[in-house]
Amino acid sequence: MTAQGLNPPSPPMPDAERLAAAIDGLAEFHDSTRPGWSREVFSEPYRASREWVRARMADAGLDPVVDAAGNIVGRLPGARGGGPALVTGSHTDTVPLGGRFDGIVGVLSGIEVATRLRETGTVLEHDLLVVDFLGEEANEFGISCMGSRSVAGVLEAGHLNRVDGSGVRLGDALDGFGVDPSAALRQAWRAGDVHAYVELHIEQGPLLERSGERIGVVTAIAGIDRLLVNFAGRAGHAGTTPMADRHDALVSAAAAVLTVDRVGCGAPVHGVATSGYIRSGPGSMGVISDHARLWAEIRSVDGSWLAGARRRIVDEIAAEAAARGVEIDVEWLSDQDPVPTAPALRDTIGAAADELGLSWKAVPSGAGHDAAHLARLGPMGMIFVPSRDGRSHCPEEFTPASDIAAGAHVLAATLLRLDRS
Amino acid sequence: MTAQGLNPPSPPMPDAERLAAAIDGLAEFHDSTRPGWSREVFSEPYRASREWVRARMADAGLDPVVDAAGNIVGRLPGARGGGPALVTGSHTDTVPLGGRFDGIVGVLSGIEVATRLRETGTVLEHDLLVVDFLGEEANEFGISCMGSRSVAGVLEAGHLNRVDGSGVRLGDALDGFGVDPSAALRQAWRAGDVHAYVELHIEQGPLLERSGERIGVVTAIAGIDRLLVNFAGRAGHAGTTPMADRHDALVSAAAAVLTVDRVGCGAPVHGVATSGYIRSGPGSMGVISDHARLWAEIRSVDGSWLAGARRRIVDEIAAEAAARGVEIDVEWLSDQDPVPTAPALRDTIGAAADELGLSWKAVPSGAGHDAAHLARLGPMGMIFVPSRDGRSHCPEEFTPASDIAAGAHVLAATLLRLDRS
Repeated sequence: MTAQGLNPPSPPMPDAERLAAAIDGLAEFHDSTRPGWSREVFSEPYRASREWVRARMADAGLDPVVDAAGNIVGRLPGARGGGPALVTGSHTDTVPLGGRFDGIVGVLSGIEVATRLRETGTVLEHDLLVVDFLGEEANEFGISCMGSRSVAGVLEAGHLNRVDGSGVRLGDALDGFGVDPSAALRQAWRAGDVHAYVELHIEQGPLLERSGERIGVVTAIAGIDRLLVNFAGRAGHAGTTPMADRHDALVSAAAAVLTVDRVGCGAPVHGVATSGYIRSGPGSMGVISDHARLWAEIRSVDGSWLAGARRRIVDEIAAEAAARGVEIDVEWLSDQDPVPTAPALRDTIGAAADELGLSWKAVPSGAGHDAAHLARLGPMGMIFVPSRDGRSHCPEEFTPASDIAAGAHVLAATLLRLDRS
Repeated sequence: MTAQGLNPPSPPMPDAERLAAAIDGLAEFHDSTRPGWSREVFSEPYRASREWVRARMADAGLDPVVDAAGNIVGRLPGARGGGPALVTGSHTDTVPLGGRFDGIVGVLSGIEVATRLRETGTVLEHDLLVVDFLGEEANEFGISCMGSRSVAGVLEAGHLNRVDGSGVRLGDALDGFGVDPSAALRQAWRAGDVHAYVELHIEQGPLLERSGERIGVVTAIAGIDRLLVNFAGRAGHAGTTPMADRHDALVSAAAAVLTVDRVGCGAPVHGVATSGYIRSGPGSMGVISDHARLWAEIRSVDGSWLAGARRRIVDEIAAEAAARGVEIDVEWLSDQDPVPTAPALRDTIGAAADELGLSWKAVPSGAGHDAAHLARLGPMGMIFVPSRDGRSHCPEEFTPASDIAAGAHVLAATLLRLDRS
């Protein structure tokens, strides 16, 4: 609490109905040939939806621009006329067959908060930026958070050469979407541009619903380590090769799936471990598998647990494979280190929720977010609202309008407090 | 021993060099764009190789014909001029990326034995048929032993509607290969057509090499039960779904692979259990698998062990999945019951080996063979020769020429003994 002794103005109550209608309006933009909501980065529905988002920002008087990274940036000018800005936002792309709330809630609540500030004549000291970051979700290029990486200065030239399943380069996909890729590499904001970044998001997990709290104050965004294991065994006739003579790559890969699961189950606080898939071959009935590949990942907000889990997983997979005479080759792709939120922002969000009479709970974020990249530019915090049944990245993803409005209210109160800090 | 008190003539020694040259000659026919030897049923190399086999039978004076099932049948007329025939043979198709000996040794040794009988002026009482059976290996249609099924009367109209990976019907594939599919359904030989069937084959396993015996007298051909398990779990975000809340279909499928392996390892005598492959989905990093399918098989010469193993596998998979909240659906496709060889033929083969001073050992056949279908038509026996390092269905498959010649010699001696029985 660095509130300089001044009490911030009372945060304006968001219009829950208008916010819910906006969420419904954005949900209209999706691939209607598939179940659920598919609005993937670079898709036609995504392109159309961004025109709609720009129009909503313009309606709110935010004078939106699309920056060189493809982010849609609206600005509510502050009294100081420049300097470090308060920033909020999230993303509006979805995973394939996804839902209507992940990311979307953060962008549309940011617009609603700005609208209410203008409607109530509340003028902030700082400029307020509301950002719809380009392409946050995991995609075939293997580069999530495209827009937030760019402003954080961690989008690299090598990323532009990644290709999707059809062989299209990310650089060319950006170009086709109207984003000059070389400009995106130079779009990094400067240190001092961000007074603070706060992102409202659905929890995507069950902790808030289970505990009955209305608001989650995020402690950290999980780190992600991705694992690819190659298993090399020996092919053989499935009818004539005695069990004791086998070097079955698929059996070792299956044992590795159970190892990954077991290590995840052993995490003391927040830690999860998931096998994505196995490919094995020759893949015909009657032949022992001579090779298999396993893709898996572990996540935790605790970097030391992650390091230990990596070691345990490799040791156990190696021991099992060695006992079976199967050779392994392990490749770790560290996707993201754990990113703690700023302690002062946690306090500010908690105080804002207290002020509004909304119960809150400190929770980890198992998912990655644009906020993890924005943390390079200034103090970062995240506000979570509950997810029904903890589900996300699927059509069943749901958060009631009243919970979203409560989250937007906390966002408004947090921004007002930060404005005075 | 029902040898009627007559001593059979001395079995002519095969020409080991000529036989080895024939094996090399047939190996020329393969898909040269792939490693090892690929001569799959209906492929162009298979078509070309069959012309070569016909020519070799014609050289041997066997007056070959292609029957309505697509089998190449050579005949060495016996003194009786008709009646039940002695039959030997095997197949000349290969698995993809296979070897030079599996099946081939039986067909070419049959031709060599017939050649030596003519060269030595040895006239049998019975006609001797040497058969190259159509398409014995497992294939994309799921119908192995096409030609031997047909003569045994167990090729069914429903089989003709099976399709390969490109959607081609088996019936149309037969037609395109010059085999009238409706005629193939009516090609069954009559009871009494077969005096005895004897097939020489490589062991495809390590038992003979390990024990040092030259000849295997096959006790039975393993039964095969094939298993398809569908696992239905629940998709979820891999970062936000706590481990305890998961219903991960891939983890249950992986546990099933280990169950299959463990049950196979527990077989008291001959029994093996092999997982072919897993398919799971949605198959993307960061999403818990909501479905998985596992294809596996168990084999044994012991029908009661097979039945018990089926029960244990299903019970253990069901219990593991239930504990994880994953639903399963199990489908068993019984491909073949165990087929014992005729006890009298085992004795005859053993006596023939003794006569030639070749050590022998009773061994099971873990692989399926055309002989399993021929057993419906008359007494059936099989002679094995060693496989180096027990390998088969791979380019490393190898049996020395001297071992093949020894097997062909035992085949000749066995046929002469059976001719007098």
